[in-house]
Amino acid sequence: MSEGSTFGSLKHLLVGRPIPSHLAHHERLSKTTGLAILSSDALSSVAYATEEIVRTLMLAGAAALTVATPVGIVISGLLLIVAFSYRQTIHAYPSGGGAYIVAKENIGPTAGLIAAAALLIDYVMTVAVSIAAGVAAVVSAFPQWHVNRTEMGLACIVLIAIGNLRGIRESGRIFSIPTYFFLASLLALLGAGAWRAVTGAIVPVVPGGSPTPSGVTALSTFLILRAFANGCTAMTGVEAVSNGVPAFKPPEEKNAADTLLIMAGLCVTLFMGVTLLAGAYRVVPLVESAPGYETVVSQLARGVFGGRGALYYAVQAATTLILILAANTAFADFPRLSSIIARDRYLPRQFMNQGDRLAFSNGILVLSLLAGILLVVFQGDTHALIPLYMIGVFVSFTLSQAGMVRKWRREGGEGWLTSALFNLVGAVATALVLVVVAVTKFAEGAWIILFLIPLLVLWFRSVHRHYERVGEQLSLRGWRPEERNHNTVVVPISGVHRAVVQALQYAKMLSPDVRAVYVDVDPKVTANVRREWERWGEGVPLVVLQSAYRSLMEPLLEYIEQVDAERPDDFVTIVLPEFVPARWWHHLLHNQRALLIKGALLFKPNTVVTSVPFHLRK
Amino acid sequence: MSEGSTFGSLKHLLVGRPIPSHLAHHERLSKTTGLAILSSDALSSVAYATEEIVRTLMLAGAAALTVATPVGIVISGLLLIVAFSYRQTIHAYPSGGGAYIVAKENIGPTAGLIAAAALLIDYVMTVAVSIAAGVAAVVSAFPQWHVNRTEMGLACIVLIAIGNLRGIRESGRIFSIPTYFFLASLLALLGAGAWRAVTGAIVPVVPGGSPTPSGVTALSTFLILRAFANGCTAMTGVEAVSNGVPAFKPPEEKNAADTLLIMAGLCVTLFMGVTLLAGAYRVVPLVESAPGYETVVSQLARGVFGGRGALYYAVQAATTLILILAANTAFADFPRLSSIIARDRYLPRQFMNQGDRLAFSNGILVLSLLAGILLVVFQGDTHALIPLYMIGVFVSFTLSQAGMVRKWRREGGEGWLTSALFNLVGAVATALVLVVVAVTKFAEGAWIILFLIPLLVLWFRSVHRHYERVGEQLSLRGWRPEERNHNTVVVPISGVHRAVVQALQYAKMLSPDVRAVYVDVDPKVTANVRREWERWGEGVPLVVLQSAYRSLMEPLLEYIEQVDAERPDDFVTIVLPEFVPARWWHHLLHNQRALLIKGALLFKPNTVVTSVPFHLRK
Repeated sequence: MSEGSTFGSLKHLLVGRPIPSHLAHHERLSKTTGLAILSSDALSSVAYATEEIVRTLMLAGAAALTVATPVGIVISGLLLIVAFSYRQTIHAYPSGGGAYIVAKENIGPTAGLIAAAALLIDYVMTVAVSIAAGVAAVVSAFPQWHVNRTEMGLACIVLIAIGNLRGIRESGRIFSIPTYFFLASLLALLGAGAWRAVTGAIVPVVPGGSPTPSGVTALSTFLILRAFANGCTAMTGVEAVSNGVPAFKPPEEKNAADTLLIMAGLCVTLFMGVTLLAGAYRVVPLVESAPGYETVVSQLARGVFGGRGALYYAVQAATTLILILAANTAFADFPRLSSIIARDRYLPRQFMNQGDRLAFSNGILVLSLLAGILLVVFQGDTHALIPLYMIGVFVSFTLSQAGMVRKWRREGGEGWLTSALFNLVGAVATALVLVVVAVTKFAEGAWIILFLIPLLVLWFRSVHRHYERVGEQLSLRGWRPEERNHNTVVVPISGVHRAVVQALQYAKMLSPDVRAVYVDVDPKVTANVRREWERWGEGVPLVVLQSAYRSLMEPLLEYIEQVDAERPDDFVTIVLPEFVPARWWHHLLHNQRALLIKGALLFKPNTVVTSVPFHLRK
Repeated sequence: MSEGSTFGSLKHLLVGRPIPSHLAHHERLSKTTGLAILSSDALSSVAYATEEIVRTLMLAGAAALTVATPVGIVISGLLLIVAFSYRQTIHAYPSGGGAYIVAKENIGPTAGLIAAAALLIDYVMTVAVSIAAGVAAVVSAFPQWHVNRTEMGLACIVLIAIGNLRGIRESGRIFSIPTYFFLASLLALLGAGAWRAVTGAIVPVVPGGSPTPSGVTALSTFLILRAFANGCTAMTGVEAVSNGVPAFKPPEEKNAADTLLIMAGLCVTLFMGVTLLAGAYRVVPLVESAPGYETVVSQLARGVFGGRGALYYAVQAATTLILILAANTAFADFPRLSSIIARDRYLPRQFMNQGDRLAFSNGILVLSLLAGILLVVFQGDTHALIPLYMIGVFVSFTLSQAGMVRKWRREGGEGWLTSALFNLVGAVATALVLVVVAVTKFAEGAWIILFLIPLLVLWFRSVHRHYERVGEQLSLRGWRPEERNHNTVVVPISGVHRAVVQALQYAKMLSPDVRAVYVDVDPKVTANVRREWERWGEGVPLVVLQSAYRSLMEPLLEYIEQVDAERPDDFVTIVLPEFVPARWWHHLLHNQRALLIKGALLFKPNTVVTSVPFHLRK
C-alpha cells in the first residue's frame, strides 16, 4: 500500500492530479473564451511583426520606411485569404483538422509527415520566439535587465513547463484575462495614437539605444521581398482555431468559424494600426543585442503616452503576458500532436497517450529542452530566431490548404468548387510566401529548417519501420509456441548468509532442479563454505567450480553454458540475492555483480536472471 | 558460449589477459633490478627538490642563496636518518611493512586509518607532482610547448592508466632502463660540472624566462624553515624499498636493506651535487607559469654542457622518464593499498581484490581521475602542488616510525633498544619536519590535506560501520529461516502477442498459481483481448482491472497489494516480458514500463520482479 502511494505521490507532484475519465471533456468554449484561448499566438505576433518589416527596410535608409505601409497591406490581405481558407477546414473537419491529418488524408503519408515535421518545429519556434519577444517587452520597460535576457527567457520556459506538467492547462478561464487585457491596451494605444495624429500633436520618438544600421544598401525588390517575408510573421497562429473546433459549444462549426473571422479582423486591425503609427511617429528599430534596446511597440507606446507612465507599463505588461500565453499554447499543441504521430507509430511510443498524463509530460519536457537550447544558442534574440520560425509555419499552411483542395475535388458535393477555390487561393498564397521566405531568409537561418524537415521525415520513417518489424515478430498469426517443460535454476553464491538462504528458498519454489554454484578461489574458504552448506544449504546440491585465472565470472558463465546445453530449448533461471540498502549511497558499497551477470546473459535466449531482494534495514 | 567470450574479450581488452594462479608470483628481484624498480620515486625528486629550496631563498635576494648548501646538508642528514630507520622496518616486517600495517598493528586502528588516508593522498600527489615535474622537464627542452603543459600532463596520466589497466606492471625488467639512464646522465652532469668548477671554467647560466621575484622579503628564520620544508621533497619515496621486501631474491631482508642504503646514498649524492652546482653556476629559478620557463636542472645542464647539445637532451629525457616511472609506481601502490584497506572493510569492496584484476582497475581509475583533477586545478604547476604533497608523506613517515618504536618496546628481544633508538630518532625527525611543513606551508595548500585526512578517516569509519551492520543482518547465528511455501505469480499484460505467450509459459513453470492482469482503458480493446485470451492464454486466468483515472500503473500496484495480503509471508513474483532490441537505440522506442514496475516494487519485501527476455532479431 505504502509503495503504491509513494509512487503515486511522486507522479502527482510532478504531473498533477489525474483527471477521472468522466470529467475528461471539460467545459466547452463560448466564442468569448474561445477567442481568448485560441488567438493568443496570432494576436501576439503584432508585438514583433511591424518591427521585422521596418528593421529590414531601414537597411535602405529612413526614406524606405514609406514602403512599410504597402507591405503591411499586402500581408493583411494574405492574412484574410488564409483565414477564409481555414474557414473551409473548420467545416470539413469539425473534429479538428490539423495540417498533419489534412495532409495525410488528402495528399498522402509523406505529405503528412512533412507537415508533422513542420508543425513540431513550428511549436518549438513558437515557444522560442514568443518568449524572446516577451523578454524584449520586459527589457524595453526595464533596460537595466538587458544583460539577463537569456536567463529570463530560460526561467520563463521552466515556469511554463512546470505549470503544464502540473496541469494548469485544465483551468482555461484565467487565460481570457491576458488576451482581453492585450486587446484593450493595444486598442487604447492605437486610439490615442490616431487621435494625436489627427490633431497634429505627434512628437517623433527619440530612440534610447543603438539604431539599426541605416542606408547601407539600395531599396531593391529583394529587400522589399525580405521585409515582406519578415512581416509575414503576423500570420503565424491563424490555424489555431481550426484545430480546436470540437472544444466549442454547439453549434461548434459556426462558433469556430465566427471566432476565426473575428480573430483575423483583430489581427489585421492591430498589425496595420501599429505599422501606420510606427511610421507616423518615425519609430526606428534598434539593435536587439545592444544595451538600451527597446521594441518598436514600446517606443510607440512611449511616444503616444508621452513617456513611461501607467498606460505605457500597461501596454508592456499586456504584451509580455500575451506572448507568454502564446508560448503556453505550444505546450498543449506539441504533446497532443506528438501523441497523434506516435499513435501512427512514427514517433516513439513514449509520446503516445496511453491513459495517464505521462506521455504529455514527455512531450512537454522535449519541447522545453529544444526551445531552451534555441534561446541559449541565439542568445534570446527575437530577430535572429524569426527566419527559423517562418519555414515551419508556411510549410504546414501550404500542405494543409493543398490537402483541402484535393479533398473538395475528390468528394465533390454542393458548392465544392467555391470551397476548393478558397483553399486554392490560400494554398497558392502561402506557397508563394514560403518560396519568398526560403529564398530571402535562406542564409539567415531558414536553411537549418529546410535541412531539418527531411531529416525528421527520415527519422519518422525509420521509427515506423522498427515498430512494423517488431509487430511482425510478435504476431501470433501462424505461430506455434514451442513446448517447454523444464526450468533449471542456478543460484550463484559468494558465501553462506541469510540473503543466500532466502534466495535458495525462493529458487526451490521455482523448480525441482536447483543447483547452487560456488567459485573456488581459496581452498580454505571453500572448505568452510562446504561445511556451512550442510547445515544451511536447504538440501540444494552445491557445485564448486575451479577458477584457473582467479576470475569469478568466467567459470560461472561457462557453467551456465553447460547447463543450457543439457536442454537447449528449455529455460535456465539464474537466481541472485540482491541487497536493497537502506540509503541510496550504500549502493556504492556493494558489488554490482548481479548487474554484471545480467549484462553478460542479456543476449542469451531462454535465460532469465532474477534478483531476490534482501532488504537491509540500516 | 559466445556470450561468455564476448564478455571475456571486452574485459581482456580493457584490463589485459588474466594471469594463471600458478604464475602469480613472478620472478624475484635482484639488488640491481630492485634498486631500479623501487627507487624511481626517491631518485626522481632530485628533479625538483633543489629548485624548491632556491626558489624560496630567492625571496630574500640572490645573496640568500648561500644558505642553500647548509639547508641541503641538513636534509641529506635527515634522509639518512629516515633510511636507517626504515632499515629496521625491513627486518621487522620481512613480508612488507607499509605505514598502514605498522601503525595499525602497533599504535591502534585510528593511527592505521590516519596513515592509510595519508598514504592514499600521498600516492595521488606522487602522480600529480611527478607528472607536473616531468612535463616541466620536457617544456624546458622545448619551450614552445609551454602553453600545453596541462594537456601534456593529462595525456601522460591517461597513457600510464591505460598501460596499467592492461597490465604492463607485470614486465618489470624494462623499468631498469630509465633509472640507470637517469643515474648515468645525472652523474655525468655532476662530474662535468664539478670538473669545470675545479678548473675554474664556470660561466654563470643566463636565464631565458622570468626569474622568481627577488629581494621582496628579509632572510628570516621562517623563510629558511620554508626553504627547508620545500627541500624535504627530496625525502619522498624513501619508504618504497621497505614495502617491497618479499619481492627480493633470498636472502630477502639483506638484499632489501642493502638496496635501501645504496638508494639513500645515491639520493644524497645527486641532491647535494645539484644543490652545490646550482649555487656555483648561479642558477636562478624561474616562474613556472610564465613562458620561457626552464627547470633548475635544465638550466644547470645547459650551463655545464655549454648549451642544448646531445648531453643536455639526454639529461632532460632521463629526468622525464624517471619522473614518469615514479608516477607509475603509484599506479601499483594505490590499488594494492586500497585492496588491503578494503579487505579490512574500511573502503568499498569494489577495491578489494577478489580474484581477477577488476579491483585493481577500480583503484587505477580513481587514482587517475583524482590526479588529473589536481593537474587541471593547479594548471600543471609543480611548485603549487608541492605543499599538498609533503603533509601526506610526513604523516605516514612519522606514524610508521613511531609504530616501530612501540613494536620494539613491546616485543623486546636482543638489541631491541638500539633498534628502537634508530626508529625513535627517525620518528622525531620526521615529526619535526611535519610540523615545520604544516606551519610554513599551511596557507599555500597544506591546510587542504590537514583538513582532508580527518575527513577520510571519518569516511573510512562510516564505511566500516555499514559493513558491520550488513554483516549482523546477514549473520546466520541464532537465525531460523521463515517457512515459505507459496509463490503467487502475476503476469501484467498490455495485449496478446508472442512475448506475452512466452512469459506465460515461463510463469506456469514457476508456480501452479499464475494470474495474468490486464488494465482496461478502452472497453472495445479489452473485449478483443478477452477473445484472443481464449486461444492463446495458456489456460491462465485473466484478471481485468478497471482504471478510474486512466492510469495503468496504479490499478496494477493495488492488485499486487491485494495478492500480497492473501499470504503476507509468502513470495509474489511479477513476470514481465522484456524486449531485447537488436540495436541499442531501439531501447528508446520501447516503454520502460518494466523498469517503472521494478522501481515501484523495489522496497516491497518478498516481492520478486522477473523479466523474461524476448529477443528481437531486427
